[in-house]
Amino acid sequence: MAPSARRKPPTLFIIGGAEDRVGKATVLRRFVRLAGGKQARIVLVPTASSFQDEVVDAYTDVFTRLGAPAPAVVNPQNRLDAHDDAAVALMEDATGIFMSGGSQLKLSQRFPGTPLGAALHRAHRRGAVVGGTSAGASIMSQFMISMGDEGITPRQRQSQLSAGLGLLEGVIVDQHFAQRARYGRLMSVVAGSPSLLGIGIDEDTAIEVRDGHEFTVHGSGAVFVIDCRSATSDAPDARRGAPLMVSGAVVHSLPAGATFDLAEVRLVKFVEKHPDVAVALATAKA
Amino acid sequence: MAPSARRKPPTLFIIGGAEDRVGKATVLRRFVRLAGGKQARIVLVPTASSFQDEVVDAYTDVFTRLGAPAPAVVNPQNRLDAHDDAAVALMEDATGIFMSGGSQLKLSQRFPGTPLGAALHRAHRRGAVVGGTSAGASIMSQFMISMGDEGITPRQRQSQLSAGLGLLEGVIVDQHFAQRARYGRLMSVVAGSPSLLGIGIDEDTAIEVRDGHEFTVHGSGAVFVIDCRSATSDAPDARRGAPLMVSGAVVHSLPAGATFDLAEVRLVKFVEKHPDVAVALATAKA
Repeated sequence: MAPSARRKPPTLFIIGGAEDRVGKATVLRRFVRLAGGKQARIVLVPTASSFQDEVVDAYTDVFTRLGAPAPAVVNPQNRLDAHDDAAVALMEDATGIFMSGGSQLKLSQRFPGTPLGAALHRAHRRGAVVGGTSAGASIMSQFMISMGDEGITPRQRQSQLSAGLGLLEGVIVDQHFAQRARYGRLMSVVAGSPSLLGIGIDEDTAIEVRDGHEFTVHGSGAVFVIDCRSATSDAPDARRGAPLMVSGAVVHSLPAGATFDLAEVRLVKFVEKHPDVAVALATAKA
Repeated sequence: MAPSARRKPPTLFIIGGAEDRVGKATVLRRFVRLAGGKQARIVLVPTASSFQDEVVDAYTDVFTRLGAPAPAVVNPQNRLDAHDDAAVALMEDATGIFMSGGSQLKLSQRFPGTPLGAALHRAHRRGAVVGGTSAGASIMSQFMISMGDEGITPRQRQSQLSAGLGLLEGVIVDQHFAQRARYGRLMSVVAGSPSLLGIGIDEDTAIEVRDGHEFTVHGSGAVFVIDCRSATSDAPDARRGAPLMVSGAVVHSLPAGATFDLAEVRLVKFVEKHPDVAVALATAKA
């Protein structure tokens, strides 16, 4: 890796799944730009997917269409594979790493606590953008929702947590948020662990997190932040399946143009900006 | 009406739709009790429904099974009918009035501003319990959501407001809340009118409102209160269909056992209590 005069801030790019790849590709365009555009060295991790060849083809198509060179592929099939030196070397050289959707439990089996996982952390710290969509989004936080039920009403034991990569501390990320009605499951997790902030990301929507504490929203949907630090809850007492009492949660829904401070837990900037909605409406009419 | 030694407090009983009628009927059992049980004189309003005969049969069955006499029926077919003296007299004599589900626009055409609507207000003020489910719940507030789209993400122009009865001031009621994913539409309305509190009621769930300011939750789901008094929003600027920015909304999800003060906008009491969930789980296994 060439030495850089200006240190790049650690950047995460976390997508709520189903991002546009064939149209304007606003979200992925931003990822490619953060990775260095024409100079990018992107490593693609299709490991979560059940259709890995298709995933590699699709992201190779869109990344090259958006101006980046074809990505290298790192794809450990088990925990032993995650010790592979060649794969670690690719990570060390990357300017961008992108983890596809699929099952986040495949990622949590093969990255946290392995040499590949450590390489991912090092890449992040030195300023390579680490991106992920859907399962690749969930794996970013330390606590990861690995399974759960749909619905708006928070219920006791609605979801299961596993250990993620911990690239972003103090939060728990959920994806396909509006599309799969995950408000209840994220609220129930945060009600039980009020030291964590819940971040729910809609499809075709992303947060760009700089230095672990400030994020900006991109894409056509919204990002929810759920803050239960001052809430009252019966999470310690409620019976399995019962609706949870959560009183006084503070909720932020943030479309493109919003910048949010995760340390101070507040909106710091908002610029009205909805280009993708206009595009979506025009497409729907066509 | 016989004079009463003890004035009854004005009571509303607002149900989020699809309340259990054939099983334990926890929600309707409470309504019948509030209406006076064996001594109840219930007026049933099936006007919102497209299946009025079936609605009359079903509620007559359940009210009598729960110990009340058969209800009288008031069913104006148009605004002129809402001037009928005999129907007004039934309202004047009622200890409980129950409005069925269906289209709330049928109710808003025939009750607000008519003699029947005025009689409903008088009945409420003198202590007759006024209940309603689904459409019959929406009509209770002054501002009524008459149409809208599903989804968790609040969007600009997601729903249409009409004038309801105004029995409960300063709020806007939505129903089938979790089941039809109405979080986004209620949030978008409250973001645009932050002086109103949003109340979203799940199916088979009710609030019992005393004296217009304190409610207790009954039934198997949850009741959401959405408070945007301190929120920041781009409701004045966002384009049609765009996701709304709403930062700092305070949200309460309240199951049975919760008592909430609408004037102070806070939980005042909570007793852990989930009998219906146990019943629902037992039924699902059977």
